[in-house]
Amino acid sequence: MSHLQQSFTVQFVYNVFFTGKLFDSTNPLLADFFTQQASAETRKKLLFVIDSGVVDTHPDLPTSIKTYFAQHADLVDLVPELLIIPGGEVAKNDPDLVEKIVDAVDRNGIDRHSYVAAIGGGSVLDLVGYAAAISHRGIRHIRIPTTVLSQNDSGVGVKNGVNYRSKKNFLGTFVPPVAVFNDNQFLLTLDDRDWRAGISEAIKVALIKDNAFFEWIESHAERLAARDMTAMQYLIHRCAEMHLQHISSGDPFEMGSSRPLDFGHWSAHKLEQLTNFETRHGEAVAIGIALDSLYSQQLGWLTEADTSRILTTLRTLGFTLYQPMLDTDNSAGVLKGLAEFREHLGGQLTIMLLQGIGRGVEVHEIDADHVRQAIATLREQESLNLQPAL
Amino acid sequence: MSHLQQSFTVQFVYNVFFTGKLFDSTNPLLADFFTQQASAETRKKLLFVIDSGVVDTHPDLPTSIKTYFAQHADLVDLVPELLIIPGGEVAKNDPDLVEKIVDAVDRNGIDRHSYVAAIGGGSVLDLVGYAAAISHRGIRHIRIPTTVLSQNDSGVGVKNGVNYRSKKNFLGTFVPPVAVFNDNQFLLTLDDRDWRAGISEAIKVALIKDNAFFEWIESHAERLAARDMTAMQYLIHRCAEMHLQHISSGDPFEMGSSRPLDFGHWSAHKLEQLTNFETRHGEAVAIGIALDSLYSQQLGWLTEADTSRILTTLRTLGFTLYQPMLDTDNSAGVLKGLAEFREHLGGQLTIMLLQGIGRGVEVHEIDADHVRQAIATLREQESLNLQPAL
Repeated sequence: MSHLQQSFTVQFVYNVFFTGKLFDSTNPLLADFFTQQASAETRKKLLFVIDSGVVDTHPDLPTSIKTYFAQHADLVDLVPELLIIPGGEVAKNDPDLVEKIVDAVDRNGIDRHSYVAAIGGGSVLDLVGYAAAISHRGIRHIRIPTTVLSQNDSGVGVKNGVNYRSKKNFLGTFVPPVAVFNDNQFLLTLDDRDWRAGISEAIKVALIKDNAFFEWIESHAERLAARDMTAMQYLIHRCAEMHLQHISSGDPFEMGSSRPLDFGHWSAHKLEQLTNFETRHGEAVAIGIALDSLYSQQLGWLTEADTSRILTTLRTLGFTLYQPMLDTDNSAGVLKGLAEFREHLGGQLTIMLLQGIGRGVEVHEIDADHVRQAIATLREQESLNLQPAL
Repeated sequence: MSHLQQSFTVQFVYNVFFTGKLFDSTNPLLADFFTQQASAETRKKLLFVIDSGVVDTHPDLPTSIKTYFAQHADLVDLVPELLIIPGGEVAKNDPDLVEKIVDAVDRNGIDRHSYVAAIGGGSVLDLVGYAAAISHRGIRHIRIPTTVLSQNDSGVGVKNGVNYRSKKNFLGTFVPPVAVFNDNQFLLTLDDRDWRAGISEAIKVALIKDNAFFEWIESHAERLAARDMTAMQYLIHRCAEMHLQHISSGDPFEMGSSRPLDFGHWSAHKLEQLTNFETRHGEAVAIGIALDSLYSQQLGWLTEADTSRILTTLRTLGFTLYQPMLDTDNSAGVLKGLAEFREHLGGQLTIMLLQGIGRGVEVHEIDADHVRQAIATLREQESLNLQPAL
């Protein structure tokens, strides 16, 4: 009995760019990227997959892309066929969409040194990233996130995935993109729900890691709610930066016991599913943050004043902090999320709670009665909140 | 316009163990492995997926597995359901098999810290490895290769994959296993074709990297053909070692322009497909080695004497070096393999040839007429070879 030991490290490097009007002929960013990536050996191809919702609000986008790459035909061969696919969480339930992208990769001869670029919200990025990751054992993948949520969180990270038999992200891989381009112009056409929803991930990361950032959000909540672009760009940049730091300083592919930067997420995942994804991810996370903040307060870990600051900030931003699916009758449904959360992350149950603003602490047990009590508090507060002032 | 740079490295470590009677109650290897992997935090599960061909020749295997892990129930929870799936290259064409494994992962609550162990030939390992890699973004995967080919080559490496619309390994990922257990007892029940077929990968690696190893194979060809187990174990160990070294010393996930250790493979992949996988991978590689050795000789890079040594060694081992699908009428078919080989690896065409035994050299062009000439030589030699002596 003998053995050979194999050991190696793999380095991953990519940039997250912040820009506006990415496909404007005067914007050199993409052209510069492909210039740096060019190799004398081989021509590279570039296949675009675009969220149909983005094409609806930016009908000139396909033409802009074609014009841009016609100007830069020396750098990369744009595949003339732009693939347009539906977005939103339901898209991740449809295995035909993965197949559609893989077939386009096949049909257009996209090899491992060529590129698939995805333009869209988090769901389209997750779906396209997954299809790229499994084609030819990994085609180079460029992300162009178009929502607040994807620009500050999921789009800049290393995960991709699709749902399987309606289980969220059951299939997926850890594969970093080769570049991320955050274009603020896409934010202008978001509806108010999507503008708002992405902010909850920034609140999440601030609450568990950065008190100063939470104070900044708290003091800019009204401006953010009023769609102030300068405030939003700062929020996205800082949130993306913290997300990247968490990945690179820890266990990027979560092979050990380390956890993603999750707070307020165990109930959020389940709530999305219970509402058939009508409650959007960021909206569910806002409720999850409120729930786990109240839970932290019940443990005596968070002061009533701090809990109130968190809930007030969320409400100022326009979030509704109660959803009928949370109701006592359904609380067993939400509590089921605990088991599924554990199973998806693997290992023992680990839930982030707060021991103060900016100070997340992991626990390994959640008391169902305390959760029900937090739900009851939210229901009561929201019903008062929704009543017209006398 | 600003940017954030993300950069991190990920370390991968795993052992390749050489043993016999892995599931014998007196063999501590697996128990030791799970003892080292144990964590106080959490119970881990272990799901076995087994090649039906292996169960046919080792009918006691399921019972042995159950008995072994009943003795070691403190270390890991064996999933009582052992999944038995068909093997061979055709299995990789069947998307239902991937789904079957993913469903078993779901049904049995296998999380990212639990294990899927595959027992079988290279195809089953590729298929199970792929299903494990995409489930929950990567479940820990143990490989127990049962053929010469998988013990010395594919089973010890970092690739997995399945065929898609009959394109070989079109879907797959680079994800290392957490351990490989090479059990020589499985080799005893291989049919002669499978015993022989795996030897061609060892010849391949010797020809491009290690003259001394080729001389060893040459001088042990008769013993290997006569199924000498001591010789076979040395061959497997040395070949696996060279394969591991190539991975760790280079570009393990082939993200740059580096290539796998391929010689004689461009035509082999196509030949397998043209014969509907009736010609097994190792048999096709033997033909591919013969073809590319003759091609190297035509370039004046390999002496006639050395070419003859290579072909003689292959024939002594029992390989047939001609296949009717190579015929001139079909040579366009095999030559199509060049384009597909380039596309799968990405970048420009890169083919390994020989400038001597133990000295592989990459070229970027292949002359079709030279290939046809090499095919004609093989056809002629084999027809003489097959005629009974007068």
